[in-house]
Amino acid sequence: MSLPEKIKLVEVGPRDGLQNESRSVPTAIKLEFIKCLSQTGLQVIETTSFVSKKKIPQLADHKELFQALDKNNNITYSALVPNMQGFITAKQVGVTEIAIFTAASESFTGHNINCSIAQSLQNYGSVISAAKAAHIRVRGYISCSLGCPYEGHIAPQKVVDIAEKLWALGCDEICLGDTIGIATANEAQLLVDAVKKKIPREHIALHFHDTYGQALANIYATLQQGITIFDCSVSGLGGCPYAPGATGNVASEDVVYMLNGLGIETGIDLDKLIVAGQYIDKFLQRNTGSKVTRALR
Amino acid sequence: MSLPEKIKLVEVGPRDGLQNESRSVPTAIKLEFIKCLSQTGLQVIETTSFVSKKKIPQLADHKELFQALDKNNNITYSALVPNMQGFITAKQVGVTEIAIFTAASESFTGHNINCSIAQSLQNYGSVISAAKAAHIRVRGYISCSLGCPYEGHIAPQKVVDIAEKLWALGCDEICLGDTIGIATANEAQLLVDAVKKKIPREHIALHFHDTYGQALANIYATLQQGITIFDCSVSGLGGCPYAPGATGNVASEDVVYMLNGLGIETGIDLDKLIVAGQYIDKFLQRNTGSKVTRALR
Repeated sequence: MSLPEKIKLVEVGPRDGLQNESRSVPTAIKLEFIKCLSQTGLQVIETTSFVSKKKIPQLADHKELFQALDKNNNITYSALVPNMQGFITAKQVGVTEIAIFTAASESFTGHNINCSIAQSLQNYGSVISAAKAAHIRVRGYISCSLGCPYEGHIAPQKVVDIAEKLWALGCDEICLGDTIGIATANEAQLLVDAVKKKIPREHIALHFHDTYGQALANIYATLQQGITIFDCSVSGLGGCPYAPGATGNVASEDVVYMLNGLGIETGIDLDKLIVAGQYIDKFLQRNTGSKVTRALR
Repeated sequence: MSLPEKIKLVEVGPRDGLQNESRSVPTAIKLEFIKCLSQTGLQVIETTSFVSKKKIPQLADHKELFQALDKNNNITYSALVPNMQGFITAKQVGVTEIAIFTAASESFTGHNINCSIAQSLQNYGSVISAAKAAHIRVRGYISCSLGCPYEGHIAPQKVVDIAEKLWALGCDEICLGDTIGIATANEAQLLVDAVKKKIPREHIALHFHDTYGQALANIYATLQQGITIFDCSVSGLGGCPYAPGATGNVASEDVVYMLNGLGIETGIDLDKLIVAGQYIDKFLQRNTGSKVTRALR
């Protein structure tokens, strides 16, 4: 079974992670955290979300943060944008890759972004066009691609339909999220098989939460299908709002450890990644969510 | 990639788990714990070790415990024996499957059982013969099959040599242990490939610790090689003496959750397994080591 030689990890700790931690983090700490991450060899760091300050107060400093970032030219500092207003601000401050987000479940989309899936796609149409015109890369997230906290099981065809629409709208990368971390390797492979028929494999990213401990097995299974882009969050930052106390994003350190063992190139220095995780954990007064860090430190 | 239809899980919580928990557990609690486990559908439960009371005080009640067990005829209640004296006691109380243990590392064998690998095999020769004569099944553990806390990397050929000797001595099952949980899927597969050339695949068991978070990915990878026997410990009981604070055995609940998702039959009721884990965790005043339990409870 041949695995890819090289993969790209997207570090989502500063955005998806901090958004879901209860303690709010001052801008200066975030800047230092992203600086630590920038020294690890990561190629993409999702930094923040240009979302309403009321909706996600943890990321209310998005504009100041992005402007103050000490940017490394080899790294893409991406950001979420929920709408045209967010896009305009993101563009103003020089964001070169945005992410827009919908879900494969109507209930989730209703709860999370207060509209239907179809409406969310319609709203994003103009954002994506504006981004393409400005040569800004666009990633499209599909949350709940493998299960929904309200609806349970999600049929792969539902995900395929949305993925095709996002692709047709101009997304450069489609990220399939297992938001509640419920899938096992078999389900992950079935979804990838279905989406691969419509979207070129090298444009598909996978975003696994480790809520049920399945993330690494799922990454291993989908590496076997030729997937080369995976999301992760240093120290497993970010809990699971649908199962309080449960694990959230898969820990970047554990993913890198596995990929190193598999001989797959990531360009990332594991020791530096551990240092970045320890930096933010110390501030948040939380225990690491990475088993590798626990074993090595 | 075809996976086995059915696998056998060996629950090692009462022995490997409790042996490595700092708090000592009264016999009555162990009996109730094993009773809970007996109701889950597990086929094999490793109950205790007939070892010197001085060496492992946590398991000093081995004889009383085994005699008092309310045994279910469909379940094998196995036990470790370190020597002929332990075997004689185990046989007296009606143990029907014993496990003997050596390691793939001289340093580890020296530290752990105070002799060389060759001496350990010689000592076990008479124990295995006596067991075979009494129609007692024998499992042979090879600790450190994928890495040693003293020697680091272990060459697969070293493990193959020992596995062949144990097989020739009459072991019915060879259990390859990643005692420090350091291996990734690739290394696990290389080891299995090597051992499979000498020992029939259905007689090979794998025992993964989750110290580096790799256990489920490793189980998934070796399922693909046709391995059908895996060890696990409910609630991830048992730490890692070589990395204090780190994770020990892979949690049975997480393994069963994955196998259920993969459509592989285990005969085990996940809810009852969670109940058994919660029972012993409550006594030990520890948090569950199972992500599945954390997500569902």
